[in-house]
Amino acid sequence: MEQSFLAYLRGRTRQLPQVAVGIGDDAAVIDWPGSAASDQPQLRQVACTDQILDGVDFRSEDQSLCDIGFKAMAINLSDIAAMGAKPSSALVTLALPAENATEIAGEVYEGILEAAQKYQVAIAGGDLSTYDGPLSISITILGWTEKPWLRTGAEEGDALFVTGALGGSLLGRHLRPEPRVELAAKLKDKVNVHAAIDVSDGFSLDLDRMLAASRMGAELELETLPISEAAHQFAEKSGRTPLEHAWSDGEDFELIFCVAPEEAAIIESTDWGVPVTRVGRVVGRTGLWKRVATSKFERVFPQGFVHGETDVAATN
Amino acid sequence: MEQSFLAYLRGRTRQLPQVAVGIGDDAAVIDWPGSAASDQPQLRQVACTDQILDGVDFRSEDQSLCDIGFKAMAINLSDIAAMGAKPSSALVTLALPAENATEIAGEVYEGILEAAQKYQVAIAGGDLSTYDGPLSISITILGWTEKPWLRTGAEEGDALFVTGALGGSLLGRHLRPEPRVELAAKLKDKVNVHAAIDVSDGFSLDLDRMLAASRMGAELELETLPISEAAHQFAEKSGRTPLEHAWSDGEDFELIFCVAPEEAAIIESTDWGVPVTRVGRVVGRTGLWKRVATSKFERVFPQGFVHGETDVAATN
Repeated sequence: MEQSFLAYLRGRTRQLPQVAVGIGDDAAVIDWPGSAASDQPQLRQVACTDQILDGVDFRSEDQSLCDIGFKAMAINLSDIAAMGAKPSSALVTLALPAENATEIAGEVYEGILEAAQKYQVAIAGGDLSTYDGPLSISITILGWTEKPWLRTGAEEGDALFVTGALGGSLLGRHLRPEPRVELAAKLKDKVNVHAAIDVSDGFSLDLDRMLAASRMGAELELETLPISEAAHQFAEKSGRTPLEHAWSDGEDFELIFCVAPEEAAIIESTDWGVPVTRVGRVVGRTGLWKRVATSKFERVFPQGFVHGETDVAATN
Repeated sequence: MEQSFLAYLRGRTRQLPQVAVGIGDDAAVIDWPGSAASDQPQLRQVACTDQILDGVDFRSEDQSLCDIGFKAMAINLSDIAAMGAKPSSALVTLALPAENATEIAGEVYEGILEAAQKYQVAIAGGDLSTYDGPLSISITILGWTEKPWLRTGAEEGDALFVTGALGGSLLGRHLRPEPRVELAAKLKDKVNVHAAIDVSDGFSLDLDRMLAASRMGAELELETLPISEAAHQFAEKSGRTPLEHAWSDGEDFELIFCVAPEEAAIIESTDWGVPVTRVGRVVGRTGLWKRVATSKFERVFPQGFVHGETDVAATN
């Protein structure tokens, strides 16, 4: 249902001027009514919402409820970071199985509050219900920035970067994602990011989404791709290579972004506290291309996790 | 679980300065980072979130999905109106039973989009998932106002008003609530509302909540209470009086508010397009009191619908 329904929604929901960027980016950008009249730099609101459901996005019988609560916050914070925004507040809605509802809510909230404290997000409100259904956590995070990073801004010739190391998050990292909130703020201070996206469904898939939104492609130096230790471990038993894991595994929650080529040196000469690796460049021909010789490229295809879930609000 | 868990949450979630009003009002009030530095009147953000669940808040087999979608928006808009705010944007999250997911989403969205258009709210984003569970609709609405109406602002001597007519919404009105968004904007232009709440769980229960938050009580002229035609009809078969229905029926989605006594005449002499009825006055002694003689009052007790649902974010 996803693609056709998403198209239907896009067609019907972009009519009012207060929403500058709606369905189709990591988060929505909402304009502040009085902001245009002010002589301050114009702060804009960024809002994203993501729900996770027991049996679909996690399994409560196998995972700690505290971890699940933390992750529900982290995936939303990753979307806010991918917009280059600073998170401010969260609204938290839980639908709880009637049996043990208080205990479940308490454990889930431990993780939610831990993430809130770590990333300085206020829990502004929410809703709690009990029902005859699986645990569902739906979080909206509001943030602010003067100039949001969109998926659409990549320009031909841009240098392409990725944070952290990719692949194998299923071995454990996915339980406690580290959204790149601080790094996004630091990048913002030093360079002009043209486009960004977070890696939720797989590096190649999310890169391809960002480039498609920008109507661009990329030439990649695949040997530079930062491969995580977990991807190597996973490869030992999966029958796939570490590179394949880095290329397609979901839930890395790293950032992919691009800047003008003349800013690449600033990024490469700065200690960001987290690895930030140059992996290729944005090109005018669409698709992903890997270098196979000095000036020869072959088409490669994105691969990743397309869930039974439609992210309406650019919440990939 | 509700009361103890709510207390626990309140104790743990009011630490960061960006949230001026958190859990415990109709919506949260979130401060805009740069706003204090501006010389414009300071606009503040109001955010509320409410979920409705099949089998708890509605029954999809008996109700039109389009009505349910409309109502999911309307109950949130009513919270925004009760804050005296103007709604701007909505984030819509649906968890859909896997069977017929597209059809269900389409019908629910018809109602959501109808409400969005009627009240000029942009759908900024959201999330869609399918799962093995009942239909769940969770909506966050963002709005703005310079001076939010809180539950806490009632002052001794204030004149107490209610909009519309009360009771019997179960006979049909509850399917298509009319949130008082426009009326709130008109009131804001003409008078200084001290405190407000919307009637979601019953006039007396919500009035009592507002007054308790203000540490006040009220002396009521119960014969002035505006009783709906539906309350009269309902009384014919329910064995209860029309007044009892007006006193305790939920889902009226009218506004209760109070203003300084010298502003009462402005309200009573203005045509608001909707009845606005003076029903009593705010007094320093707590509790609800009905007039039984010229200067004699008897204590009356709030009654209404306390659902198996805890509204964490002041979303009553």
